[in-house]
Amino acid sequence: MITIETAAHSIMERCAILATYSEESTCLTRRFATPAMRKVNDLVSSWMLAAGMVVKVDQVGNLIGRYEGIVNAQRTLLLGSHLDTVRDAGKYDGILGVLLALALVERLHERAERLPFALEVIGFADEEGTRYHTPYLGSEALAGIFNERALKLVDEDGITLADALRTFGGDPEHIAAACRRQDDLLGYCEVHIEQGPILEASNLPVGVVSAITGQSRMQIIFTGQAGHAGTVPMAARHDALCAAASFVLEAESRARAIPEMVATVGKLIVQPGASNVIPGSVTLSLDLRHPDDHIREHVCQQLYAQAQGIGEKRGVTVTWKEYPANPTVHCSEQLTQLLAQAITRENYPVRTIPSGAGHDAAVMAELTTIAMLFVRCRGGISHHPDEAVEVADVAVALRVMEDFLGQLAQNA
Amino acid sequence: MITIETAAHSIMERCAILATYSEESTCLTRRFATPAMRKVNDLVSSWMLAAGMVVKVDQVGNLIGRYEGIVNAQRTLLLGSHLDTVRDAGKYDGILGVLLALALVERLHERAERLPFALEVIGFADEEGTRYHTPYLGSEALAGIFNERALKLVDEDGITLADALRTFGGDPEHIAAACRRQDDLLGYCEVHIEQGPILEASNLPVGVVSAITGQSRMQIIFTGQAGHAGTVPMAARHDALCAAASFVLEAESRARAIPEMVATVGKLIVQPGASNVIPGSVTLSLDLRHPDDHIREHVCQQLYAQAQGIGEKRGVTVTWKEYPANPTVHCSEQLTQLLAQAITRENYPVRTIPSGAGHDAAVMAELTTIAMLFVRCRGGISHHPDEAVEVADVAVALRVMEDFLGQLAQNA
Repeated sequence: MITIETAAHSIMERCAILATYSEESTCLTRRFATPAMRKVNDLVSSWMLAAGMVVKVDQVGNLIGRYEGIVNAQRTLLLGSHLDTVRDAGKYDGILGVLLALALVERLHERAERLPFALEVIGFADEEGTRYHTPYLGSEALAGIFNERALKLVDEDGITLADALRTFGGDPEHIAAACRRQDDLLGYCEVHIEQGPILEASNLPVGVVSAITGQSRMQIIFTGQAGHAGTVPMAARHDALCAAASFVLEAESRARAIPEMVATVGKLIVQPGASNVIPGSVTLSLDLRHPDDHIREHVCQQLYAQAQGIGEKRGVTVTWKEYPANPTVHCSEQLTQLLAQAITRENYPVRTIPSGAGHDAAVMAELTTIAMLFVRCRGGISHHPDEAVEVADVAVALRVMEDFLGQLAQNA
Repeated sequence: MITIETAAHSIMERCAILATYSEESTCLTRRFATPAMRKVNDLVSSWMLAAGMVVKVDQVGNLIGRYEGIVNAQRTLLLGSHLDTVRDAGKYDGILGVLLALALVERLHERAERLPFALEVIGFADEEGTRYHTPYLGSEALAGIFNERALKLVDEDGITLADALRTFGGDPEHIAAACRRQDDLLGYCEVHIEQGPILEASNLPVGVVSAITGQSRMQIIFTGQAGHAGTVPMAARHDALCAAASFVLEAESRARAIPEMVATVGKLIVQPGASNVIPGSVTLSLDLRHPDDHIREHVCQQLYAQAQGIGEKRGVTVTWKEYPANPTVHCSEQLTQLLAQAITRENYPVRTIPSGAGHDAAVMAELTTIAMLFVRCRGGISHHPDEAVEVADVAVALRVMEDFLGQLAQNA
């Protein structure tokens, strides 16, 4: 008999095992369509088969295990997350969601229980975009929005995405066939580590996701005038870095003033970048996120105006390039409500969090309704070997998800 | 008969000729002890010989032409500047001072005139430090403060300074012998482009230098906490770049508040430097200059305290590393007074400027009294192919220097 506690321990052990399937000997890096990913697909596939599932790897390399529902069950609930990682990754980002979904099926299988709908557990082939700088390749293929131009992308070894996929056993010529039909779907539910500090600060094991936060990304160039650090008086300067610094602080203080807003200048490059030369130009990135698209767009406009104002005041030219924005993707109220009720029955207050990070769920929203459950992680750390989750929190997540499935079954 | 105007034109032409002696075909780069420097020394040497000078290249590669004074003249006035350049340099930085000094001798020689002191025109071998990152090699050898450890330095091609010098025809084993005896020296006077915008803004062709400004150089590291740009709320961040930006603006506003103070953050590197990661650390350079060492040191202490304050407020660690400071080197009141009188006789107001840039003169102050005359340059631009001076300003500088020599001769 697999208890919830045993299942949670097993998930943790499997996360540790998968963390050893790496392209690098000193750290965990598992990119799209690599031999390390092949081995992980094979291993997870064997666990899926043992759990009574029918297993396939689709045209883009997604691993999909299907556990049939009761006879004549018409519909399918999708569960899962991704099996690829960033460079020097932690054990849980993505992986936890796949293995937790698998554990749900294992417990059903052990009881020989069938739900009034089928379950499919998906291990997406590429969410992080580490190899080709194109995140969500796996979910885009499944959602039918894969852009075929991506097939020509080349990795750092000069291998095209199409060739990598062919070697992996995928079928770059027929990726469109990976698209999951919509009419039989109940939705997609993804369990994921929070990647932030809110649950930890609230002393809660799990939380529900309200939305996957919209994001604006800008490249901003401040062009002033380089000059000799010793000979140009302060009053005669057009220092690009001082202008940029002023903008960095404006972005910070504006974001601080608006709940749930985050603004980040993560990249900033000074030219010419010599200690005795006044900076002539600065190129920086701005990343703005807020669950309300209108607020995000409004702040974006305000910061644009502030950058221009700084430029005018300082005699510095401002070039503002905006990349296509990702609007906020809202989770299904109905599915999220079921998750919230399950959390309440576990005697925890329901904490609703917008996800500042992107997830496969945001792409899956193109195909079906979505929901996400966050699991507390230590220190909010992710994309780092220090990623950590507690087995007790995984057990809570399992209980919540079982309750969720039970409610869906009752409603079906 | 060489008129002042002819001489000024000749100086400009020679600057243009020397600018063609480069290590690179597309721009002017002439580093220490290179074939390009060899050819320039040969050419300038031929001009010196034609001007009645005795010429030598010393142990470190400095070109020195000596024009004897009247019979039994005991003393020597040193004139000159440097013949090396930065990468992608302009035509005048350094070069102008050497060729202007040479022109002074040519005019004396043409009139067969001898002064009551000898003149030596020095073309220093390395002021910019482009090849070995050690500025003032030439003047340090002449002033007897050359550090022999520099001989082991290696350039980007793996060639030691000693080997480069040997190939050039220098004598790395006997650099100490390049030291100029002190007791016969009247002083050292250097003509140089301003490298700043003050003379241009004041509509003046020349100005006198009061001092070569002291300089503090720091490396400051702000260490905060990296994190996911989407998931860490603003209130939970310890963003190293926001802390650094705050410091950049503090340094700027403090320098702005103090006349003649300049503060420059020229280098700033963000780690990890990805658009979707909160900056975990920032390393920046701070360059502080002021003609009053006490003021500079005081501001340095204030900025240190401010950096610590920013760090405490933001939960960011501040590491402050200070390199050995260069104290201010004052020009000789007596020699500077003679330059000022000469400018007055040319019917220009005397503008006294501290030199924010370093010069061979600062090193030569270890050996003898110094003076400097600045020539207006366009837009304050230097270390750039756009460096430009007007021939009319060069003529004024020639007249001022001839007057200066005349006054010294009267006083001798």
